[in-house]
Amino acid sequence: MTILERFFAGDIRALSKVISHIENRSDGYQKLLGRLYTKAGNSLRIGITGPPGAGKSTLVNGLVHEYLAQKRRVGVVAVDPTSPFTGGALLGDRVRMHEFPTGGEVYFRSMATRGATGGLAGATGNVAVALDAFGYDITLIETVGVGQVELDIIDTCDTVVVAIVPESGDAVQTMKAGLMEIADIFVVNKADRPGAEKLSFDLGQMLDTKARKEGAWPIPVLSTVAVDRKNVDELHRKIDEHIAFVKTSGQFEKHRRQQVKKKILSILKHQFQKEFLERLAGEVDFEDVIDGILSGKTNPFQVGQELFDRFSAPQ
Amino acid sequence: MTILERFFAGDIRALSKVISHIENRSDGYQKLLGRLYTKAGNSLRIGITGPPGAGKSTLVNGLVHEYLAQKRRVGVVAVDPTSPFTGGALLGDRVRMHEFPTGGEVYFRSMATRGATGGLAGATGNVAVALDAFGYDITLIETVGVGQVELDIIDTCDTVVVAIVPESGDAVQTMKAGLMEIADIFVVNKADRPGAEKLSFDLGQMLDTKARKEGAWPIPVLSTVAVDRKNVDELHRKIDEHIAFVKTSGQFEKHRRQQVKKKILSILKHQFQKEFLERLAGEVDFEDVIDGILSGKTNPFQVGQELFDRFSAPQ
Repeated sequence: MTILERFFAGDIRALSKVISHIENRSDGYQKLLGRLYTKAGNSLRIGITGPPGAGKSTLVNGLVHEYLAQKRRVGVVAVDPTSPFTGGALLGDRVRMHEFPTGGEVYFRSMATRGATGGLAGATGNVAVALDAFGYDITLIETVGVGQVELDIIDTCDTVVVAIVPESGDAVQTMKAGLMEIADIFVVNKADRPGAEKLSFDLGQMLDTKARKEGAWPIPVLSTVAVDRKNVDELHRKIDEHIAFVKTSGQFEKHRRQQVKKKILSILKHQFQKEFLERLAGEVDFEDVIDGILSGKTNPFQVGQELFDRFSAPQ
Repeated sequence: MTILERFFAGDIRALSKVISHIENRSDGYQKLLGRLYTKAGNSLRIGITGPPGAGKSTLVNGLVHEYLAQKRRVGVVAVDPTSPFTGGALLGDRVRMHEFPTGGEVYFRSMATRGATGGLAGATGNVAVALDAFGYDITLIETVGVGQVELDIIDTCDTVVVAIVPESGDAVQTMKAGLMEIADIFVVNKADRPGAEKLSFDLGQMLDTKARKEGAWPIPVLSTVAVDRKNVDELHRKIDEHIAFVKTSGQFEKHRRQQVKKKILSILKHQFQKEFLERLAGEVDFEDVIDGILSGKTNPFQVGQELFDRFSAPQ
């Protein structure tokens, strides 16, 4: 059996191999992914983000239990350079797997960020497609909310949960970090600690004063103590509610379609990089070109236009 | 007179207009920049970076005085979303200009980041080219060291000064932020405050233990109190020393050539975005394509390859 046949027969080891293939972008991964794409589209993507130490992994674990109780299969992708799982997928798998059933109802994967952010958002999206095609009903994507890459990752999700804790700074800080714009649901985790109530209150006030479009989803602020599974069931219900809301409003479909378009454009950029820029490196004497620019005979824009015209088909 | 004629005649207002043109990437800016490129190449680029509150602006002001005393003309570009100058170039100009001569020996410009990081590094480099072509001997680029964009900006400089203060955290933090790798000169500013000596010592130790290539520049750690201009003259001397060092070693030339190549590649990517992707948007019915993908008839990779082949020239 080929690896794809084993994959579609439900072989977990084939899934892991396929994901590694995708993550490393090894030869032929696009063709493989293309095949997976045609089988994907049924999984819901839930993003969990927030500052380091917000208890995202614990929330994710709690949510997994909720979904399993509903007999829904769950795939988890963790992209968090600050999490204890960093350092490779294997460690992550080991740390979390022991408390869950081993029949394939749940699958954990840590994205090895390896310090390189290039293409991480794309790679994470691709792994989510693999989990989707494999048959997971829910894909949970956990990432630390620190930069543009992480925001790009979270932007591929149907529902975004932003988790914060009293320790992670005040509500204003949270807004500044750009987390306000992306949240569908706020969770104040470790809600048994000092300052939690005030943080919830302040967040709620900020959300109230924010201009909200007629008929838009009212962003809730929940309080959880994930380590005790306290109120995680409510988070689970709110996620379901949000999904139902955006499906009814048409936002769900619209967002998914935008994602597909973004994916096509990103593939095209990647093709350009690979098929054109790498070809150039072999065909053009850059030292000569640079001499011409440094001596003032030509300039980078003129050179750029000349080289680009070589690429583009006549119209 | 055209704007470029006035520019080359030394008209400061023409310089400001040209820079706005470049910064806004308004129609024809590439052609304009191309002209400037052929006149540029004589200005030295000094980058000053570090965490918010490190006193970078004060250090820059001190350095400007040093350069002016040497009869060297100085252009300053500030790219610091956390600095008091943010909010537009005009305010920045006003805040700092009053203490300097008004004959054009010094020129300040704040890059309006407007929350958008896209293309900021490129735009800053382009503004530096304008200052160079206008005839400034020195271009000081001040930016807060917080993310990839800022590192990209600073990477275009011939000498990089990293400024820290006791308050900005310990030496280990500084290393973690990626500032260790980019520094040619370290400055512990506000050196009259508690913890400054220890910070200098720790930094020095770390630099000593770092593997250093035979014949590489020995990265110094200076102590300054920029607000009192204390030791800024030594920083100024060290910068000159570093420039002399890299010019002798050939690194200067090598780095400049790499910059030109990077610029060409970035122009090509930009062209691709503009000429190819925007043309696609007009010619391709994306809704139709997306329907095909969502129904599983095709996939983004197949579509990407087809579109790419349609527009790229046959080899």
